[in-house]
Amino acid sequence: MLSAAALTVGVDVGGTSVRAGVVDADGAVLDTARAPTPRAEAALEATVARVIGELAGRHPVEAAGLALAGFITPDRRGVRFAPHLSWRDAPVADRIAARTGLPVVVEHDANAAALAELHFGAAAGAPPPSTTVFVALGTGIGAALLIDGVLFRGAHGVAPELGHLRVVPGGRPCPCGKAGCWERYCSGTALATTAVEMIAREPGLSPALRRLVVDDPGRITGRRVAAAARDGDPLACAAVADLARWLGEGLALVADVFDPELVVIGGGVAASAPLFLDDAREHYASRLTGAGRRPLARIRTAQLGEDAAVVGAARLAREAG
Amino acid sequence: MLSAAALTVGVDVGGTSVRAGVVDADGAVLDTARAPTPRAEAALEATVARVIGELAGRHPVEAAGLALAGFITPDRRGVRFAPHLSWRDAPVADRIAARTGLPVVVEHDANAAALAELHFGAAAGAPPPSTTVFVALGTGIGAALLIDGVLFRGAHGVAPELGHLRVVPGGRPCPCGKAGCWERYCSGTALATTAVEMIAREPGLSPALRRLVVDDPGRITGRRVAAAARDGDPLACAAVADLARWLGEGLALVADVFDPELVVIGGGVAASAPLFLDDAREHYASRLTGAGRRPLARIRTAQLGEDAAVVGAARLAREAG
Repeated sequence: MLSAAALTVGVDVGGTSVRAGVVDADGAVLDTARAPTPRAEAALEATVARVIGELAGRHPVEAAGLALAGFITPDRRGVRFAPHLSWRDAPVADRIAARTGLPVVVEHDANAAALAELHFGAAAGAPPPSTTVFVALGTGIGAALLIDGVLFRGAHGVAPELGHLRVVPGGRPCPCGKAGCWERYCSGTALATTAVEMIAREPGLSPALRRLVVDDPGRITGRRVAAAARDGDPLACAAVADLARWLGEGLALVADVFDPELVVIGGGVAASAPLFLDDAREHYASRLTGAGRRPLARIRTAQLGEDAAVVGAARLAREAG
Repeated sequence: MLSAAALTVGVDVGGTSVRAGVVDADGAVLDTARAPTPRAEAALEATVARVIGELAGRHPVEAAGLALAGFITPDRRGVRFAPHLSWRDAPVADRIAARTGLPVVVEHDANAAALAELHFGAAAGAPPPSTTVFVALGTGIGAALLIDGVLFRGAHGVAPELGHLRVVPGGRPCPCGKAGCWERYCSGTALATTAVEMIAREPGLSPALRRLVVDDPGRITGRRVAAAARDGDPLACAAVADLARWLGEGLALVADVFDPELVVIGGGVAASAPLFLDDAREHYASRLTGAGRRPLARIRTAQLGEDAAVVGAARLAREAG
């Protein structure tokens, strides 16, 4: 563990952009840098090293942590596979360390975000909850499990992978090759898909959203559907209610397998939590195995917004340093 | 932890019978006693105490452990709810201790069996597997998770509850109140249900099994279907293949959430594992999220048969003593 005065860099390596921040021991983000994500492996590594170097030029940083969606090796130095990045069985930590001269660790982005929420956000407190599940709703679903404040990674570093639990056999096809995966029904992407399906069935229900679709179905995004729901659009409200139902359904499943004390809902969709979290909570409580005969988990909204993975990755770099 | 020479009693409190055994430090069962399970609470406690007392009269036992299907309190002294027994929020350990004069602990039966397999059976070895999932296929599904050799119970003592994960929305109704639960498709009970459904659809396929059904559908049991499959009966083989498929399907889900190094298949149905385990393994490998890009768990058959819960409960009594 580095000294309390030390600063570290956290880097959220996403499919669209690389976002980095200088973070202090209290989880405060002091400075940021970002760049678009290149496709090619060498260019990707050069970009990650450049944003770290940019921040290291302005602050006395001592270590860096990378957060990304993908399968990370148990030693947190390599990336086995990342669906939106070009790394395949790549020794990413060593390569970035060589380029920057800093010690580097790599972590799954949901794990990093969960750790940030544990130390500085929705799950902060002493003692830490015995069992915390973090569910990030964004393009897909990212998830993390913290047992007594420690990340659980499973035997090969890939647990828990919840987004591709099949909730609907024969349901919506998923890029993973399966169908009916939870994230096809409960994510920002799912919210848009549901709205598009509803518009096709009942075109009159939402003239505003329908106009978007006629121009280009890609213009319907989860964010736009959530905004329309906040304005009271009936179709958008129905799409959000559908998401709430599937969130509750999935959380009941999560509670069956992990029996958590606390569930934290994060990711971009969490910004709209007031629209759906009460419904999801009720659905969860009614779908739980042994409902009424066992304690319920508390369900809370993440507090750190889109900085969570950056803050968590920086925290991991601090712990490893 | 009691001395290596100490003997303890393990009691498997099932819905039909109470089975107890005197167990030594090596997991050997030296003597047994059993009795039918009474419905009423006081009679149940008297029976459990009597079988323990019978064994204590013949051996110098120092502690007792009870294993049962149900929600156990995190301190392993109370039973919140047990679907096949009359205990409801009952301080079972204290009551049995008062009746027997022995220290008593209570544990979920799948947890007890998993611990026995870890120390003396399919998962035995040093160091223990980092992450082991135990799946017991019997009347329903019991499950346990061992992390570095320690049972994971979740925040309220009820994890992991896998039998009621919904694998088929709108599927077979379940006594739990939901529908399409995993254990409705993958258990001894499920094997019988599947065979009965197949007989209704294709009565000519298995004259032998059909005769049983005409007399009384209740005569089709999982055990009988497995026996018929061993004899090459085509309908029974198809029913077993269906179970294999759902087992693989569920194990893919289990691997997604827990990323285990080892999965141990136990329970009564495991005695027929040669009929279905290879198929289940293939289905699991193909259904796993990120198939081909991540290590697979080893899948093995439990070694201790129907003694597992007794041996595990006795082991827990030894550890607690």
